Amino acid sequence: MVPLPFDRAEYAARLARIRGEMARRDIGLMVVTDIANQHYITGYDGWSFYTPQVVLVPVEDEEPVWVGRAMDAAGGRLTAWMRPENVLGFPESYVQQTDRHPMDWIAELIGARGWGRRRIAVELEAYYYSPKAHARLVAGLPAATILDAELLVNWVRAVKSPAEIAYLRNAARLAEAAMRAAAEIIAPGVRECDAIARIYAAQMGGHQDFAGDITALPPTILAGENASAPHLMWSDRRFGADETIALELAGACRHYTAGLARTMQLGRPGPKVLDTAKAVLEGMEAVLAAVRPGVTGEDVEAAWRTVIARHGLKKESRIGYSIGLGYPPDWGEHTISLRQGDRHVLEPGNVLHSILGMWMDGWGIEVSETILVSERGCETLTEFPREVARK
Amino acid sequence: MVPLPFDRAEYAARLARIRGEMARRDIGLMVVTDIANQHYITGYDGWSFYTPQVVLVPVEDEEPVWVGRAMDAAGGRLTAWMRPENVLGFPESYVQQTDRHPMDWIAELIGARGWGRRRIAVELEAYYYSPKAHARLVAGLPAATILDAELLVNWVRAVKSPAEIAYLRNAARLAEAAMRAAAEIIAPGVRECDAIARIYAAQMGGHQDFAGDITALPPTILAGENASAPHLMWSDRRFGADETIALELAGACRHYTAGLARTMQLGRPGPKVLDTAKAVLEGMEAVLAAVRPGVTGEDVEAAWRTVIARHGLKKESRIGYSIGLGYPPDWGEHTISLRQGDRHVLEPGNVLHSILGMWMDGWGIEVSETILVSERGCETLTEFPREVARK
Repeated sequence: MVPLPFDRAEYAARLARIRGEMARRDIGLMVVTDIANQHYITGYDGWSFYTPQVVLVPVEDEEPVWVGRAMDAAGGRLTAWMRPENVLGFPESYVQQTDRHPMDWIAELIGARGWGRRRIAVELEAYYYSPKAHARLVAGLPAATILDAELLVNWVRAVKSPAEIAYLRNAARLAEAAMRAAAEIIAPGVRECDAIARIYAAQMGGHQDFAGDITALPPTILAGENASAPHLMWSDRRFGADETIALELAGACRHYTAGLARTMQLGRPGPKVLDTAKAVLEGMEAVLAAVRPGVTGEDVEAAWRTVIARHGLKKESRIGYSIGLGYPPDWGEHTISLRQGDRHVLEPGNVLHSILGMWMDGWGIEVSETILVSERGCETLTEFPREVARK
Repeated sequence: MVPLPFDRAEYAARLARIRGEMARRDIGLMVVTDIANQHYITGYDGWSFYTPQVVLVPVEDEEPVWVGRAMDAAGGRLTAWMRPENVLGFPESYVQQTDRHPMDWIAELIGARGWGRRRIAVELEAYYYSPKAHARLVAGLPAATILDAELLVNWVRAVKSPAEIAYLRNAARLAEAAMRAAAEIIAPGVRECDAIARIYAAQMGGHQDFAGDITALPPTILAGENASAPHLMWSDRRFGADETIALELAGACRHYTAGLARTMQLGRPGPKVLDTAKAVLEGMEAVLAAVRPGVTGEDVEAAWRTVIARHGLKKESRIGYSIGLGYPPDWGEHTISLRQGDRHVLEPGNVLHSILGMWMDGWGIEVSETILVSERGCETLTEFPREVARK
C-alpha cells in the first residue's frame, strides 16, 4: 500500500468529528461527492473523478466505503486505508452509457448495505457530481429521505491539525520556489509559456525533501492585455519592455495548498501602478494585524477596506478564503470568506489565503499571503518579499 | 481582445450545426454547462469555472450569452467573440452564499431575455454543474419545460475541422516533446516528481512556434507499486533498478489535446512484460488497420480483441474514445467509445485516442496513439517509437 499522508488516528478523529455533526443533524448516511472531502476521509488519491465517485459514511462507527470505476478500485486499494471490501468499483459496463448510470449501481449498493431507508445527506454542490447523477441516485433510493449535506465536511476541514499544517508549510516552500523561478525567467522578450514551464517545474520538483503536487488552479500570469482580468490563461505572447505582471502562483504538497501572489514590473511602471501597490501593501499589513482568534471574516475585510478607502480605492470581491486541501478546479474550501457579512469567528488552526487583487484598466496588482491563525494572532506560511519587483 | 483560436466563420458554422440539431429536437434555448462546450461555442478561456458558468444559446440566429462571475466577465470580454452586452457577470454578492445562488440570477436573466417559457435543454451531466445549481435554475423558471441536452454539442464536436486538426497536430508535437523529456530523465534513483517537472516543462514550453496549455489529465507515471493501477499520482519515490514504467502523457494546444502513452523498462523486465508488450503492439497494429470511415467503434475493438485473445489476454475496459477539446478533468469527449456495443460509424474528421492499457499484478503496459480518421483510412497524429524503451 502507498504510504498514507496521515496516521490512522488522524482519520479516526476526522470521522469522529464528522459523525458528531451527522448525529446532531439526524443524518444516517452521508454521500460524500466532493473529491477533496473524499481524500480527507479515506486517503484515496487518483485522477479518476471524471467518472462518478463517492464515499459513503454511515453514522455508526464503521469503515466508510469508497466507490469509483472498476479499473480505479485497484488504485483505491493501494491508497485508501479501508479494508478491500470497502473499496468498490462499479462495472466498466456502466461507464458513459445512455441506458444505465453508475449511480444506479451505487444506489443498489446503499440498499444492499441496509442504508436505503435512512436520512441520507448528499453533498449537492460539489464539482464532478452532476444533476443527472443525483437524479439517478434519488430514483434508486425511493425509501430514503434525501437531504443536502451542505458544507458539513468542509467546515470540519476548516481547522487544521499539526500534521496538516506541516504539509502546508511544505507547500509554502514550493510556492516560494515557483515565485523565485518566475522572477528569474520573466524578462522582456520571454514567452509567457516558457515562464509557465519553469514555474511548473519548480512546483513539482522544487524541493529536495518532498514532491510537489498539481495545484488546484494552474499558475496565472496576468500581463499585457490580460492584466486587467483575473483567471486568464497563458499564451506564447512575449513580455513587453514596460509591463506590470501579476503572478498568482501556489505550491501543493499531498494536495495541501499554499497560495502566493506577487507583482513584477518590467521597465517603467504606469502612472498609478506604484501608488496602487503601496495601498495594497499597506492593506496587507492591516489584514495581518487584524487576523487573530475571536475576530470575524468581516472584521478582517473591514481593516483592509479602511486602508484602501484612504487611498481612494475600492474592491467589490472578497479578499480571502479558507485554504487547505484542494483538488482542481479550486483550492478554496468554500467556508470562511473575508468579506462583509461573514460572521465566522476565526480560531487557531484556520488557514486563510488573503489575496488582494486590483484589476485596473490594462494592468493589475496582486499580492497574497497564506496565513495561519495561531493561538494569539497569525503567521504567514509564505515568505517572499512583498514589494513590486522591478526588473 | 485576445486573438481568437478560430475565425468567426468557424464559430458561425458550429452554431449552425448546433441550432440545426436544436430545431430538430424542438429546443428553444440551450443552457451549455460543459466548459469545453462553452469554449467551443464562444472562445471564452479562463480558469473561472469554480463558480457557476453557463453559455445560453437561443435557437434563433442571435449571439450566445456567456454568464460567469462578475470579476470574470472582464476576461470574457477579452476572450469571447460576442459583443460586450452578451458577456455578463453575476454580482459578487452571489458567490458562495447560503441564501442565494448564481443560478437564481441566471434564471432571472433567461426570463428577462424572453426565453422563460421555452423548451430549455440543459446539459445535465457536465463536470461543473451541480444538482443544487440545477435545482435553483428549475425553481427560477417555473414556466419553462426543462429537458436534458445530453451530448448534443459533444456530438457536433466529434467531427474536427481542418483548423482544429492543425491544433491537434501541434498538441501531438508537445506530447512527443513530453515523452522525449520523460525518456531522457527517467533512470534508477531519479524521483518521480523530478520526471514530472521535466514533463510539465516540455508540455508548456516544448515547441518554439506555439505555447502548450494545461492538459485535462495531469501526466501519469505508473511505476513500482503504483504500476498495477491506472490514474494514480506521482510522489517523491525514486525509480528502482528493475522497473516497468507506464507513462500516460499528452500535449495540449489551445486546449486541443493529443494523448500519448508508452512504456519504459529499467533494468531487467519481469517474465511476462515483453510478451505482453508484444501482444499490445500487435493489438495497436490491428486497431490502426481497422480504423477507417464506415466502421463502428465496436468493429475496431473487435480487431484488438481478436489479437490479444490469441495471446491469452483480455481487457474489460474500452480501448479508446473521441478526443479533441478538453478541460480538466477529462480530455475524452464522452461520445465515441471503442468498445463492444458502440455502433457509431466513424467518419473523416473523427479523432480517437486509442489507449491499450494492461494493468497486471505489480506492473503494467500502456501504449496509445491519437488517431485521425481520414478520407480512406487513418493516420496517427502522434509519432513516437512504440516499442518498450529499455534503459
